[in-house]
Amino acid sequence: MDDDLCDALSRVVSARYVSRAKQNANAVDGVFKRLSSSRAMPKEPLGDDVIELMLHRLSSMDSNNFIGNVGVGEREGRTFSSLVRRRCFGMTHGIGRSGDVAAEQPKACGSSLANALCGFLARDALKLAGMRDVGKRVLVLPTATGMTLTLVLTSLKKQRGVEGRYVIWSRLDQKTCVKAVTCAGLEIVVIEPVLRGDQLETDVEAIERAIENLGSERVVAVVTSTSCFAPRACDEIEKTAKMCERLDVGHVINNAYGVQSRALCERVNKAWTVGRVDAVVQSTDKNFLVPVGGALVCCGKRNETLIDEVATNYPGRASAYASLDLFITLLSMGEKGWVRLLTERETLYEYMREELSKVAEEVGERMLETPGNPISMAMTLSCAQNVSPTMFGSMLFSRLVSGTRVVTPGETKTIGGVEFRGFGASHSAYPHTYFTAAAAIGTTHDDVDRFAAILRKTFLEFKVKAAASAAAS
Amino acid sequence: MDDDLCDALSRVVSARYVSRAKQNANAVDGVFKRLSSSRAMPKEPLGDDVIELMLHRLSSMDSNNFIGNVGVGEREGRTFSSLVRRRCFGMTHGIGRSGDVAAEQPKACGSSLANALCGFLARDALKLAGMRDVGKRVLVLPTATGMTLTLVLTSLKKQRGVEGRYVIWSRLDQKTCVKAVTCAGLEIVVIEPVLRGDQLETDVEAIERAIENLGSERVVAVVTSTSCFAPRACDEIEKTAKMCERLDVGHVINNAYGVQSRALCERVNKAWTVGRVDAVVQSTDKNFLVPVGGALVCCGKRNETLIDEVATNYPGRASAYASLDLFITLLSMGEKGWVRLLTERETLYEYMREELSKVAEEVGERMLETPGNPISMAMTLSCAQNVSPTMFGSMLFSRLVSGTRVVTPGETKTIGGVEFRGFGASHSAYPHTYFTAAAAIGTTHDDVDRFAAILRKTFLEFKVKAAASAAAS
Amino acid sequence: MDDDLCDALSRVVSARYVSRAKQNANAVDGVFKRLSSSRAMPKEPLGDDVIELMLHRLSSMDSNNFIGNVGVGEREGRTFSSLVRRRCFGMTHGIGRSGDVAAEQPKACGSSLANALCGFLARDALKLAGMRDVGKRVLVLPTATGMTLTLVLTSLKKQRGVEGRYVIWSRLDQKTCVKAVTCAGLEIVVIEPVLRGDQLETDVEAIERAIENLGSERVVAVVTSTSCFAPRACDEIEKTAKMCERLDVGHVINNAYGVQSRALCERVNKAWTVGRVDAVVQSTDKNFLVPVGGALVCCGKRNETLIDEVATNYPGRASAYASLDLFITLLSMGEKGWVRLLTERETLYEYMREELSKVAEEVGERMLETPGNPISMAMTLSCAQNVSPTMFGSMLFSRLVSGTRVVTPGETKTIGGVEFRGFGASHSAYPHTYFTAAAAIGTTHDDVDRFAAILRKTFLEFKVKAAASAAAS
Amino acid sequence: MDDDLCDALSRVVSARYVSRAKQNANAVDGVFKRLSSSRAMPKEPLGDDVIELMLHRLSSMDSNNFIGNVGVGEREGRTFSSLVRRRCFGMTHGIGRSGDVAAEQPKACGSSLANALCGFLARDALKLAGMRDVGKRVLVLPTATGMTLTLVLTSLKKQRGVEGRYVIWSRLDQKTCVKAVTCAGLEIVVIEPVLRGDQLETDVEAIERAIENLGSERVVAVVTSTSCFAPRACDEIEKTAKMCERLDVGHVINNAYGVQSRALCERVNKAWTVGRVDAVVQSTDKNFLVPVGGALVCCGKRNETLIDEVATNYPGRASAYASLDLFITLLSMGEKGWVRLLTERETLYEYMREELSKVAEEVGERMLETPGNPISMAMTLSCAQNVSPTMFGSMLFSRLVSGTRVVTPGETKTIGGVEFRGFGASHSAYPHTYFTAAAAIGTTHDDVDRFAAILRKTFLEFKVKAAASAAAS
Repeated sequence: MDDDLCDALSRVVSARYVSRAKQNANAVDGVFKRLSSSRAMPKEPLGDDVIELMLHRLSSMDSNNFIGNVGVGEREGRTFSSLVRRRCFGMTHGIGRSGDVAAEQPKACGSSLANALCGFLARDALKLAGMRDVGKRVLVLPTATGMTLTLVLTSLKKQRGVEGRYVIWSRLDQKTCVKAVTCAGLEIVVIEPVLRGDQLETDVEAIERAIENLGSERVVAVVTSTSCFAPRACDEIEKTAKMCERLDVGHVINNAYGVQSRALCERVNKAWTVGRVDAVVQSTDKNFLVPVGGALVCCGKRNETLIDEVATNYPGRASAYASLDLFITLLSMGEKGWVRLLTERETLYEYMREELSKVAEEVGERMLETPGNPISMAMTLSCAQNVSPTMFGSMLFSRLVSGTRVVTPGETKTIGGVEFRGFGASHSAYPHTYFTAAAAIGTTHDDVDRFAAILRKTFLEFKVKAAASAAAS
Repeated sequence: MDDDLCDALSRVVSARYVSRAKQNANAVDGVFKRLSSSRAMPKEPLGDDVIELMLHRLSSMDSNNFIGNVGVGEREGRTFSSLVRRRCFGMTHGIGRSGDVAAEQPKACGSSLANALCGFLARDALKLAGMRDVGKRVLVLPTATGMTLTLVLTSLKKQRGVEGRYVIWSRLDQKTCVKAVTCAGLEIVVIEPVLRGDQLETDVEAIERAIENLGSERVVAVVTSTSCFAPRACDEIEKTAKMCERLDVGHVINNAYGVQSRALCERVNKAWTVGRVDAVVQSTDKNFLVPVGGALVCCGKRNETLIDEVATNYPGRASAYASLDLFITLLSMGEKGWVRLLTERETLYEYMREELSKVAEEVGERMLETPGNPISMAMTLSCAQNVSPTMFGSMLFSRLVSGTRVVTPGETKTIGGVEFRGFGASHSAYPHTYFTAAAAIGTTHDDVDRFAAILRKTFLEFKVKAAASAAAS
Repeated sequence: MDDDLCDALSRVVSARYVSRAKQNANAVDGVFKRLSSSRAMPKEPLGDDVIELMLHRLSSMDSNNFIGNVGVGEREGRTFSSLVRRRCFGMTHGIGRSGDVAAEQPKACGSSLANALCGFLARDALKLAGMRDVGKRVLVLPTATGMTLTLVLTSLKKQRGVEGRYVIWSRLDQKTCVKAVTCAGLEIVVIEPVLRGDQLETDVEAIERAIENLGSERVVAVVTSTSCFAPRACDEIEKTAKMCERLDVGHVINNAYGVQSRALCERVNKAWTVGRVDAVVQSTDKNFLVPVGGALVCCGKRNETLIDEVATNYPGRASAYASLDLFITLLSMGEKGWVRLLTERETLYEYMREELSKVAEEVGERMLETPGNPISMAMTLSCAQNVSPTMFGSMLFSRLVSGTRVVTPGETKTIGGVEFRGFGASHSAYPHTYFTAAAAIGTTHDDVDRFAAILRKTFLEFKVKAAASAAAS
Repeated sequence: MDDDLCDALSRVVSARYVSRAKQNANAVDGVFKRLSSSRAMPKEPLGDDVIELMLHRLSSMDSNNFIGNVGVGEREGRTFSSLVRRRCFGMTHGIGRSGDVAAEQPKACGSSLANALCGFLARDALKLAGMRDVGKRVLVLPTATGMTLTLVLTSLKKQRGVEGRYVIWSRLDQKTCVKAVTCAGLEIVVIEPVLRGDQLETDVEAIERAIENLGSERVVAVVTSTSCFAPRACDEIEKTAKMCERLDVGHVINNAYGVQSRALCERVNKAWTVGRVDAVVQSTDKNFLVPVGGALVCCGKRNETLIDEVATNYPGRASAYASLDLFITLLSMGEKGWVRLLTERETLYEYMREELSKVAEEVGERMLETPGNPISMAMTLSCAQNVSPTMFGSMLFSRLVSGTRVVTPGETKTIGGVEFRGFGASHSAYPHTYFTAAAAIGTTHDDVDRFAAILRKTFLEFKVKAAASAAAS
């Protein structure tokens, strides 16, 4: 708010009120300045009003929104629907250019700023979560984890040269992981985790053997995962990193929803300190409470050129939505809000585990011992003897509980040409039927209480059904 | 966007793109500056993006929205619901102060600016519509026409002194007018218009007689109306103005939806040139396509102190919604859009009259001759002999036509203690049954076409019913 | 969601997912049904998504939003600006009809429903706050407290007959109260409160003497207030109620922001049990955290016809904004949220008083003893000897504290022809300079902490200035 | 709106108004039903209110929005920011599942419906534009044209088997096309178009020779383009299709912004009738006036399995934004609006060409003769002899004209390892300096008029500069 404007407005309302208004206008400018220089999340959360003002100012920096603009190109950022226009705040040009998906766009200064600032904030958010040496640059991609893994693997393959053909993967039963590899035009080699107690742990030796068998030059990367459904534990990423370094093989960590766990971030941190980690991929929706559709890629210090390779590998422009969602959200959280969310989740995990343990004891089940999984937990469903365990899941869903996952050993599924015995359990012969629940970021104590209450009722009813079914058979 | 901010942003994206963005930021500042200095509508319509940016900037000028503000008063503009916050753009303090409903508020510079600028724009809009000598100030009140008339009459009564007790009113059958008078603590004296041909015209002589009978010092005002349902014509406001001047009696024109008609504006213009007009009241919703809830008051040059009296008469603060709706709308129209709307309405009136005349001829009815009403028109419903005419209205409504009004002579109604024979027709013995339709601002050619088509079908079906009913009786 | 629709959608996605969706559609219908039958706030807060869906459904019930509607009336609810349309959710017809400001509108079923339901919710909210016998009907008016008082007094005057001319008012230094009386065409008689200790209390005897002097038939009402700035206490509304009953004089309680205090609600409750209370007026913005512009009127059981009189007295339609803001807010709070807000405020009051007492002690000032005011509190500003006390307020404001009010004895002001000595203090000779702060609904512990911190700094700096000024003089 | 609900609401407002409201509720249901059964665009445009109601209803069908839902999974569709929540209408689960990017999601019935319906509408929109035999299914991908081409080529490569290694591409100077091929892990073979008159036309023979040289089994596809910058013409897609059929080579048409031209759609239509077309890719933003970030893929009847292959090839979930933007936009257009936009564009092209021809003649330039390009046109810039032609572009931009593209022969650029002489012109030795402008969908007559006016001024000034520069040198 320059002096001329103040003068003009002072002809309409009192100069001293205008001068106070100017003070706040300067404060809003100050937010932009601080973001640009500190490249870090604001300490305090910003209110929606401030964020919206910032977005409208950014929007007014895109040429399609210039007052009096005449567009005669083939793409002028026009929108037909005002509903659509509103949801992108008039920033219609997307992100990136043909050369780099994070590059600035000449026609869209505001969109470019939002995207660039988002990259800085995302990098800071990862650091605050515990991934301290996150590398020079964090890439915010408008693709969810699966497609992002594909892009990373494609880029890594280019880097590693023509012989690269295989990806070795520590089994984690989600189709997406398999398809991320095949979509990259690579072949997947599945290494099943080993069962120790209740827990499924990385078979590092088997991975090493596989590399040796295939020849390290033909292996583009080992893909490990941090976050996963219990009873699978976080992979032994540190050991794997050391081994990959030793054998000169790429190593990509699928840190899908691991950012929300200090323990997992710490392990990533350690992994890229002690060994080789080429890239770490994380979901924006699962960690940052935004809609599905984005992922963050970072490379630590080990393969700093890879991050640029991924950015330049992306062909053409892309949607700005994921980046803008994250930008808004990180401003809205502020450092304080983000750290509080992380801390609350840690507490929540303990609380959920305690409450579920109580339920388990009451109903004659037990929690599986999975100390290596700080997010997901599993309870046995040993009572499901005469009735289909999946009915238990349906009963929960109809009582408005979503997100539990009932797993029965024994199913076989073929995905991308690979056969998975015991699909769902990440193991071909897991000894228990169980269901999982997650203490994910954003879950509340109230959620846990209501879940536990519904669980009690459901067990009761389920056992009645099971008994009836046993009697009938 | 000052140089410091440009520098900061230039560390994130290219300086030359930032400098182009600055060019547009200056253009947005320029809009504020021009509004403040010209006090007139912008020539060109402004896009929603620009308007929204302006609103968010204004909002950031209210102290409750200052970053870091700590409110410890009894009214700090807090909102509980984000939906509510959004719909007022965070401008929660309303308008006015205890001293004047249009006064600026120390805590709410942005809201005050919006309200003050709206007053300027509204004044300009009235002038562009043809009310050239609108006076120094136009008041945007957060009350619809009825309550606004009450406030004007209350203020006028104060001005005219203790003896004022009566309001003489040229009959127009809407309850609101009667209640506007009684709510002001005044008594209404109804003067019925005279029937000339099809048209109902002001009985100026009867008004004069009434004043003489009551004593002019006891008459606060004569209230005339411009816009009304056909077959009533616009009142003889020029003659009434002259008479009021001669007899030293107040004169308030209810110009409810007359702003949209050049002919009516011209007559108001003439009235306050040739005689006495204390205040003219117009609806915001009916003339400016905003939601119900606001009115404009202007006083011409005749009673310039009255407008301030009305403003200071209003006790305390008031809702900013009506003012903000109008502000947004006038920016969105621009002078060009507003003038085009007015012109289109004139054309539309002719078109509707032609199309309805065709229908009338086809079905054996006729349009009532009402040259003194440039907005509303009426068609006879002589076929409604054996069936209730109101059924005709219902049939239209169920075919999705809203806004027609079927009038049957003969009903008597008592409002505020006053008996109205032939209520609905503004006359105690109007000779025809008819229905009305209006060529109001915003109506489209497509509306007229669809209306005419539905009308044809409805007449057909109605006549069948009437015939059946006649046969049955 | 009827079966036909389920079938249709099941041709696009799986029938079992559609059937789950139907379950939730039924739940949303259930909200409408419960509101309609219980006429009470929902127990649990509703999310913004649900509320917005409800609003869009209500909007689709207004005829201007019917698919295929053809409007040919003079008022068809058209909007020019999509920004404006959005902020009223397409409900443009306002509220009320000429007969009653709360009456349903034939063209606007949805708007009418929203307004009627809001009345029920508001009534319930008052009851939950402690005003148990609130009467059959609570009126939500689109006018702030001042104008609403005017409307109530106008209606009461009508009820009480032609001789009514005076309003006796227990002094409370806000211009609005005075103007509310004069705008109703009545004369105000000011009765100054008496000073007891630090506190200003109602001079009930003086009010009684005034009534006797004027003649009770000429007194329309005594106006008392509950909520006010310390050191003024809540008026002795119970004693006044008894006296008004005895003397057959109207009694209107200005309960502006008293709903938020259980103590004040309890006193209102007692007043209309033990004596005469014709109407109680409360602000929507100050009690319910909505924008300025609405008020609630209730009449208890004493004068049940008055509430209808106020509704029918209002001339014509009115803005729906205030009603809709309150409707949204009360759904968003739910009973649980509303009660929590009230409880938190009580706690906050104690906390603020403690924290300010600490500051006062540190800086050599003291809190005024005002046990009769459960919302506002005051601290002496005895250090303001050589410098203008108002500078203290400015210093706070520039440090982003809004809402404190510095009062220096001695100023004289004339409002509506009445002279007020010592204006601001509600007393002609209050012995202290002081400033006030309020523990109003929505204030947080963090607000108090920041306020106390800023206060400490400001006192320090202020004393330096005062010392410098003393040295200089 | 079932009978129970009507009854409940009828206790609050009159039953007959509720029954009218029900009529419209049925009309909204009817829209859903018709979309589900006709799988076509609605004939008439839908208003924003109706669309928003539909979106909120769809949103309420996603389990994360169920009233009372308890989420205990790792991904529960939570959002932190209400701004973010609002822009996705609470539909946070994205689209697709690991098995198919267009598959329905168990937790997100509403999102799934929106996505599925969008696919139907998009298919209909392509047919209405002239691509009559568009195939059984149109895929709406959340990736812009470049990445979508990559996905299509990847899928086609899988289909064609392990030997596929090359893509033959009729040169069109945009980096994205090159990178789309390399990102798919394929090698690009560039075939330069031939210059005929002013126009650049496909060198079909050279393509055929290249296929023969490389071996057809090693060629995954020929990639041709329809829409492009003049003076390049639409590729000879019919001849290429015949040749690809003959040689058993894949053929992918990049129809980036060709949907908006009836001529180009007709050519696509003919191509897949007379020969081989495996897939056609089109941008959503350039054709449908939505933000950047989506593309449509269709396969005609030739390779019906490919479309499923592309869908299942996509690894995991994806953003729903592109699909939702398109869904909203197509509802908002209606068939009528979409067809009108297309027709207006055709007219606009003629108008722009005429107006620019006039300017060209006045300033001593000429329009390049490019009858094979129905969207883009080019004017010589022969006056740019002594000054940099790019300055001409900058001058236009600073006068608020965006979208022109100044091309000077002679620049060489290396992209993805391939050297392009004369980059920008799609030809290594184009004989003219020129600039382009496009008559793209959404451009208005007013845009053309303002463009022409600015162009005249700019030429004048540019020539002065050129003269000054010539004098100086």
